[in-house]
Amino acid sequence: MNSAFDKLVEMFMRFPGIGPRQARRFVYFLLALDSGSLARLTEAIDELRREATQCRRCGYHFFKKSITQETCQICADPHRDQSQLMIVEKDLDVDSFKKTDSYNGFFYILGGLVPILEKEPGKKVRLTPLSKLIKEEVAAGRLREIIFALSVNPEGDYTIEYLREMISPLVAGSAIRISVLGRGLSTGTEVEYSDAETLRSALENRH
Amino acid sequence: MNSAFDKLVEMFMRFPGIGPRQARRFVYFLLALDSGSLARLTEAIDELRREATQCRRCGYHFFKKSITQETCQICADPHRDQSQLMIVEKDLDVDSFKKTDSYNGFFYILGGLVPILEKEPGKKVRLTPLSKLIKEEVAAGRLREIIFALSVNPEGDYTIEYLREMISPLVAGSAIRISVLGRGLSTGTEVEYSDAETLRSALENRH
Amino acid sequence: MNSAFDKLVEMFMRFPGIGPRQARRFVYFLLALDSGSLARLTEAIDELRREATQCRRCGYHFFKKSITQETCQICADPHRDQSQLMIVEKDLDVDSFKKTDSYNGFFYILGGLVPILEKEPGKKVRLTPLSKLIKEEVAAGRLREIIFALSVNPEGDYTIEYLREMISPLVAGSAIRISVLGRGLSTGTEVEYSDAETLRSALENRH
Amino acid sequence: MNSAFDKLVEMFMRFPGIGPRQARRFVYFLLALDSGSLARLTEAIDELRREATQCRRCGYHFFKKSITQETCQICADPHRDQSQLMIVEKDLDVDSFKKTDSYNGFFYILGGLVPILEKEPGKKVRLTPLSKLIKEEVAAGRLREIIFALSVNPEGDYTIEYLREMISPLVAGSAIRISVLGRGLSTGTEVEYSDAETLRSALENRH
Repeated sequence: MNSAFDKLVEMFMRFPGIGPRQARRFVYFLLALDSGSLARLTEAIDELRREATQCRRCGYHFFKKSITQETCQICADPHRDQSQLMIVEKDLDVDSFKKTDSYNGFFYILGGLVPILEKEPGKKVRLTPLSKLIKEEVAAGRLREIIFALSVNPEGDYTIEYLREMISPLVAGSAIRISVLGRGLSTGTEVEYSDAETLRSALENRH
Repeated sequence: MNSAFDKLVEMFMRFPGIGPRQARRFVYFLLALDSGSLARLTEAIDELRREATQCRRCGYHFFKKSITQETCQICADPHRDQSQLMIVEKDLDVDSFKKTDSYNGFFYILGGLVPILEKEPGKKVRLTPLSKLIKEEVAAGRLREIIFALSVNPEGDYTIEYLREMISPLVAGSAIRISVLGRGLSTGTEVEYSDAETLRSALENRH
Repeated sequence: MNSAFDKLVEMFMRFPGIGPRQARRFVYFLLALDSGSLARLTEAIDELRREATQCRRCGYHFFKKSITQETCQICADPHRDQSQLMIVEKDLDVDSFKKTDSYNGFFYILGGLVPILEKEPGKKVRLTPLSKLIKEEVAAGRLREIIFALSVNPEGDYTIEYLREMISPLVAGSAIRISVLGRGLSTGTEVEYSDAETLRSALENRH
Repeated sequence: MNSAFDKLVEMFMRFPGIGPRQARRFVYFLLALDSGSLARLTEAIDELRREATQCRRCGYHFFKKSITQETCQICADPHRDQSQLMIVEKDLDVDSFKKTDSYNGFFYILGGLVPILEKEPGKKVRLTPLSKLIKEEVAAGRLREIIFALSVNPEGDYTIEYLREMISPLVAGSAIRISVLGRGLSTGTEVEYSDAETLRSALENRH
């Protein structure tokens, strides 16, 4: 095929979870679409490019309602609880927590987990703006709790450790508490198939 | 084939997780074994039959060390904490908790979950001996906590509800607490793929 | 989110094998891309739209090298064997056969299988252009064989039956043979797990 | 647990497809069975041990109907076609072919595939009795065809090659043909997902 075909295959291979075979199927799928559908697709992507922006405060991607809007709907919402800040890995995690209806504080999107052997993790995840935000919040005196809501795996554990060291000095002297999501049995798990760490946590968190 | 073949296929189909095809493969596997190996297999099963017994107290299956032994090693262990009783579904769950090294109380094996539409659940799971055991413990005044350690699914939830109703009157007036294993993020889970109920619990159990 | 976000989620859900969750992940993936990458993506799709076209003869999608080119590289290739026409379901099947290096005839892309209960199958798959092509080939006197290379499942079998009835009158009186890909053991299959139909074909096709 | 428990876990781990966890579940399953069921299980295994035997001719395992019976029902069946001998890997493959109703010759069970790097393959699969059987059949003058019906994978291909070299001198000068099951599309396969070798064979075997 020609270069536009190959270029698209390559681009689709960068999409999350897409291998070479499915990338090719995507391009053939596009080839079979009528011209109008293809135009609507590129228009929607262009619209995304023009109107979507990243919240200056939390890093969430959103669509500007006005040209001057710099923070997302959540950060701009005066009814949210200013005493809580939850640190998550990615935008989709915000959506997951919004569905629970049990958290009403603010979020901060790291943009990934801190890689374990990375010398300059600040180039991979959004560490500097997090320090800056926390300093501002400490100064403003509203924050009471920082909640780490990260994946339960070695990289998630390392990230929690790394952030704890980074944040502790910033909140020293304040009444701000640093907490981590509780571990235990997830929906659908059976005791027999649970690892020792999960059972231990489930036992500690019994209620 | 003949009836011994078919009988064995039928028996293996009752083994946990075994369908008709694998049951047949098992019998062909036995057919290909030498006579000595087959003899060792039946001897081991006979030994299991002769020497294994079910603990009169907790229902756990164990091997008698003497002909008069009626309770399992756990129930007979004077060093275990007599103030805690954990109710589990099956023998394997006991093994899982023993591996955690974080629980030192006693166990009670239900032998399954209470089926949701069952009219006589006492015929399916060991309810009567549980009532009896709890009454004895209440009378002896040692028990402080009953912990439900069951699967996190509709049948597990139903079982907890059912047992709570059954047990509550028995412990009324005593200081015995009924608790349930904590829910939250299990090892290996990501926030994005967690259901609302699990996130809610993880948030409540943050520490 | 806003309409551009939702529109893209909806569009990605029409991609082959993509469900709602992955569609959302795709949009978040796009949101996290820099503006340049997004521009390259829409440019590549636009290029596809402008330059890709469907071969007038066989239905394969290809990129025009000149504005007047109407048939694909395969149909235009004078070295290919004009006596054979292979009917396949989709563009990717052509690629699969090209990799075998054992077929040098022409192709015809149906664009799908004939749906079993469809009243007007000509609206779903490219039947009319196939009739036209075969008539031309019969008139030209070059064609010797039409090969059905379709999926081995009920819809594939139905399509073969349907096309056979459609094509038979067109080739009546000519020496054109209609054939179907041989069935048998595929790479990686074991006798034990093969169905009776496959074993029967493998036995007939033994060599 | 004790040694009978551990011995059984170890034995079940040798069953096809069974890992340590499922082996333990099997033993717990046995522990929960009543004494009568366990007795029936060991009786059935003992019966298998006493009455099952391996056919002296083809290697198939069967149950003797009389104490003098030395060949299986298939080898003893006068209505089967004496001109064909099919070489298969295991007993279950015989059952698969019997279900097709399209083969009426005899079988020979190799008892496995010839391991690729094995110095003495005759210790792993039944090669010597095969040579002997073929020599007898050549002498008797009834055999017309030897069919290799083995898995389509590297070890299966190696076995075919190995047996061909072993058998060719034995049948030299006779009219006995050596054949291999045909390859092609199996039930359920799609062209797009088929490897080049399978497509090539399917093309050759078109009909």
